[in-house]
Amino acid sequence: MATVTFLVHPDRADALALATDTATWLTERGDTARILRFSGPDVVSEAGGETPLSAVDLSGTTVAVSMGGDGTFLRVVRLANDADVPVLGVNFGRLGYLPDLMPDELRQALTRVFEGQATIEERCALAVTVTNRSVDMPAETMLALNEVVIEKIDFGHTVRLATTIDGEDALTYSADGLIVATPTGSTAYNLSAGGPILAPTLRALVMTPVAPHFSLDRSLVLTETQQVTITVAPDRAGVLVIDGAEVGRLEPGSVVTCRVAARPVRVVRNEPQTFGGILRFRLLADRVP
Amino acid sequence: MATVTFLVHPDRADALALATDTATWLTERGDTARILRFSGPDVVSEAGGETPLSAVDLSGTTVAVSMGGDGTFLRVVRLANDADVPVLGVNFGRLGYLPDLMPDELRQALTRVFEGQATIEERCALAVTVTNRSVDMPAETMLALNEVVIEKIDFGHTVRLATTIDGEDALTYSADGLIVATPTGSTAYNLSAGGPILAPTLRALVMTPVAPHFSLDRSLVLTETQQVTITVAPDRAGVLVIDGAEVGRLEPGSVVTCRVAARPVRVVRNEPQTFGGILRFRLLADRVP
Amino acid sequence: MATVTFLVHPDRADALALATDTATWLTERGDTARILRFSGPDVVSEAGGETPLSAVDLSGTTVAVSMGGDGTFLRVVRLANDADVPVLGVNFGRLGYLPDLMPDELRQALTRVFEGQATIEERCALAVTVTNRSVDMPAETMLALNEVVIEKIDFGHTVRLATTIDGEDALTYSADGLIVATPTGSTAYNLSAGGPILAPTLRALVMTPVAPHFSLDRSLVLTETQQVTITVAPDRAGVLVIDGAEVGRLEPGSVVTCRVAARPVRVVRNEPQTFGGILRFRLLADRVP
Amino acid sequence: MATVTFLVHPDRADALALATDTATWLTERGDTARILRFSGPDVVSEAGGETPLSAVDLSGTTVAVSMGGDGTFLRVVRLANDADVPVLGVNFGRLGYLPDLMPDELRQALTRVFEGQATIEERCALAVTVTNRSVDMPAETMLALNEVVIEKIDFGHTVRLATTIDGEDALTYSADGLIVATPTGSTAYNLSAGGPILAPTLRALVMTPVAPHFSLDRSLVLTETQQVTITVAPDRAGVLVIDGAEVGRLEPGSVVTCRVAARPVRVVRNEPQTFGGILRFRLLADRVP
Repeated sequence: MATVTFLVHPDRADALALATDTATWLTERGDTARILRFSGPDVVSEAGGETPLSAVDLSGTTVAVSMGGDGTFLRVVRLANDADVPVLGVNFGRLGYLPDLMPDELRQALTRVFEGQATIEERCALAVTVTNRSVDMPAETMLALNEVVIEKIDFGHTVRLATTIDGEDALTYSADGLIVATPTGSTAYNLSAGGPILAPTLRALVMTPVAPHFSLDRSLVLTETQQVTITVAPDRAGVLVIDGAEVGRLEPGSVVTCRVAARPVRVVRNEPQTFGGILRFRLLADRVP
Repeated sequence: MATVTFLVHPDRADALALATDTATWLTERGDTARILRFSGPDVVSEAGGETPLSAVDLSGTTVAVSMGGDGTFLRVVRLANDADVPVLGVNFGRLGYLPDLMPDELRQALTRVFEGQATIEERCALAVTVTNRSVDMPAETMLALNEVVIEKIDFGHTVRLATTIDGEDALTYSADGLIVATPTGSTAYNLSAGGPILAPTLRALVMTPVAPHFSLDRSLVLTETQQVTITVAPDRAGVLVIDGAEVGRLEPGSVVTCRVAARPVRVVRNEPQTFGGILRFRLLADRVP
Repeated sequence: MATVTFLVHPDRADALALATDTATWLTERGDTARILRFSGPDVVSEAGGETPLSAVDLSGTTVAVSMGGDGTFLRVVRLANDADVPVLGVNFGRLGYLPDLMPDELRQALTRVFEGQATIEERCALAVTVTNRSVDMPAETMLALNEVVIEKIDFGHTVRLATTIDGEDALTYSADGLIVATPTGSTAYNLSAGGPILAPTLRALVMTPVAPHFSLDRSLVLTETQQVTITVAPDRAGVLVIDGAEVGRLEPGSVVTCRVAARPVRVVRNEPQTFGGILRFRLLADRVP
Repeated sequence: MATVTFLVHPDRADALALATDTATWLTERGDTARILRFSGPDVVSEAGGETPLSAVDLSGTTVAVSMGGDGTFLRVVRLANDADVPVLGVNFGRLGYLPDLMPDELRQALTRVFEGQATIEERCALAVTVTNRSVDMPAETMLALNEVVIEKIDFGHTVRLATTIDGEDALTYSADGLIVATPTGSTAYNLSAGGPILAPTLRALVMTPVAPHFSLDRSLVLTETQQVTITVAPDRAGVLVIDGAEVGRLEPGSVVTCRVAARPVRVVRNEPQTFGGILRFRLLADRVP
């Protein structure tokens, strides 16, 4: 018997309706279904009340179903990764790069999962920790599916950063920001900043500065065993952004450490994601003069 | 008889001492000297009290002398440009790209000005206005010597901008920002963002996006008669930054208009600034691995 | 009475037919028409025999009509510029960036020229000379409408170049090539190599290196009065290419001098070419994933 | 007992002298030494006559010693890779990126090899084959240590290329060339063309176009199991260049296939090559304004 957890975008009635409907179908089949709806930055609500996000445990779930857009998907991935549960994304968003399933394909996709016929792809995530941090910065290791960015905090000023790779001094930057991206995230902000596209199955990370002043502006591609530290210079603070969400202020002297997470993210794909498919998606996406 | 106004960095005692000393020398020669010291964002103090920056009038001054670094110089240029007065920059800062005179060269440089032997170079500035603006945004035309930037306001999100050139739709951007730079400013933020270096005497402006998403990432170089408008998309605000200083928040729908200012900035140079000299300065500046 | 010279692509029977037909119409109107057909790199043929290209004189012509694609247009422009004659381009080619008239618009466009109603746009060209040249390299000043390129000659090796601007040492390059482009040419090879797009009416030139090794990879934009020299290093030859055509081998020590040509190229446009129009043309052109 | 083969640059008397001297020392120790001197593109000479390069067999050699610069090293690597022999590079060249040993360090380095104390690093190479080739193009699989380039053949014209990744259509290019580089080669031509720097121990390849016209100009980083094909368009030939040496003409329709070679190149390093060391080397190398 399978156990399915649906995680639903807070404002999408159609997503909630589909989750409810599919849960009924699952129950009738003899499977178990649970519906969680995001209702704030750190809370999900379900029948019976609200739960802090940190208390949600997906252990024992066969598959977690993300019902929303890219943002919902990223949140679900973090919960699922903790419990080593694969994620299936139904796309209710506009672009839908990550969740690739149309709503009317959901039952068939679940059936494939139950029958062991589904394509489950593994994707690198980044494990991120901050030391010398201010009190409101999380102490625990954070997960990034797309990218970590250390950004400037003041308009009109750069942030100054010193990096090491495996403990050895590498480049220093005075820049708008420094991006550390996964292969999945390499087609997002990293691409805008001039970085390369990494094959989705490559086990690596890529570092790309944004508008660097007087320093090498090329990207560096590191192996899955290499560790990067990024130290904010003593004179000026920065900001930490993970997967497009602001995490908090990085005081001068803060050190952000990034490496490929030991456990990959497991994504149930409707069809295998090829490199050619990614290139076509990125090139044809809403390009306007 | 010459009239010299010294404008001094608020925290540099050495700059104030040199201004005082040189003023004495001028008075003994029969010239007129006035010392203004910046003492806040909008105030200068001199013997006799404080004056709002907007009430400072340099009309009738033979030459305005900037005594500080690049920041001081940019402020002096704005005051001087209103009164069509040339600016001479004594460098008390670290890098000193704009003010190129060493403190011990000041008397000789002033003498050259009085004798009509000085090199006075003309540099393009930008005239910037904002319409559909919020109440705290200046209504008047602002002057940019280096660049105007329309930046994203939220960490992790782009700003979306639509541009016109001479009233005709040009490119749209979803980017970290859009830079409109003068030839003088082309070696600053514009260069970090991948833009070209413009000859200092070219009468032109250059537009360069910062980390654009899905749009042409090349710079556009416009003539001195062309006018650019940049409209902030209806869904998200931006920030206006001029010469590295935050001007204010650009509400959705705000329109920033830029063109080469009719009156050029006049800079007294110790030695003529050649293109080769600029390239060497930029390439050799504190480059570290 | 007008005098029209048609210059026709060697292999386009349809272009020749239209030229013949239009010439008849002109003669019937009382105007004078002449048809020249390119028949080799340096020869044109017309009724009565062949003429070396160097002997063709368009003086006294009201308008020169290019009947072919971009290549034909570039050749006609050189002949017309010598005689200060405007050029009208009928597009028989594939892309047709420069000649913008459809064949069935020709009579109407000529009528507008005769009536003084036509839009005649002026475009910068480059004047190019080579000194320390080998014997087979032209001694006279050459005209470039799009760009001059000094390229590497050996596969797998760079060419090494030293540049001066107005007689002062500027940058040195070890690169695949160095492009000096007009505003018109800024959207061609210069754009592929990362250079900026210049407004078509800007009086300037832009220098962009191709794949430079260890040197500043940014473009430089120069004024119409500045002169660039490019010297091929003593150790290795290069090749000179103007508007996509190989001119000849540049021996080590050869010096190529470029500046904006004193006389602009005059182009009869079907409709005025705006900056927005150029951007749309370039962005929408055969882009495929 | 060890067996050492010295492979010596054809024109360096000092390299030959050191090889001879070191061979005597080895013989006195009871080891076996052999000296081969490159004497043409496809020939080596040794005591007793000349041998075609294709007949040289390094099987049974403990270590192959390259005595020359980067070019010699690349040739030695190919011979050594066939026999799975590690390579030690003594630097007699100018820059010496690959061979990192000074001549006076040779005996000590060999001693470390014999005692099993040496650092032997593994580096990805590329396996390259050409199909639909002309008669003079090699039929066998070729090895690239730095990069494979498919270049344009005509000055002033691009080469048009269609690529597949693992059999699926990927990007097409109209460009000066397309580079497929190893991590080792990522700091050479790939870097000049705007590509990223790959960690030396990453098992991957990177594809970077040179001056592409109207197509994605970003690099793609592929895994060690992915295979790329590059097909020359039917209308125009290209040229194949491997590690800076011209291999031959690629007729229209030729297909070049690249993948990471199954067997890595094994390099004896004087000291381990770190990522930080590579970055410093590249940034400080002969940079001139």
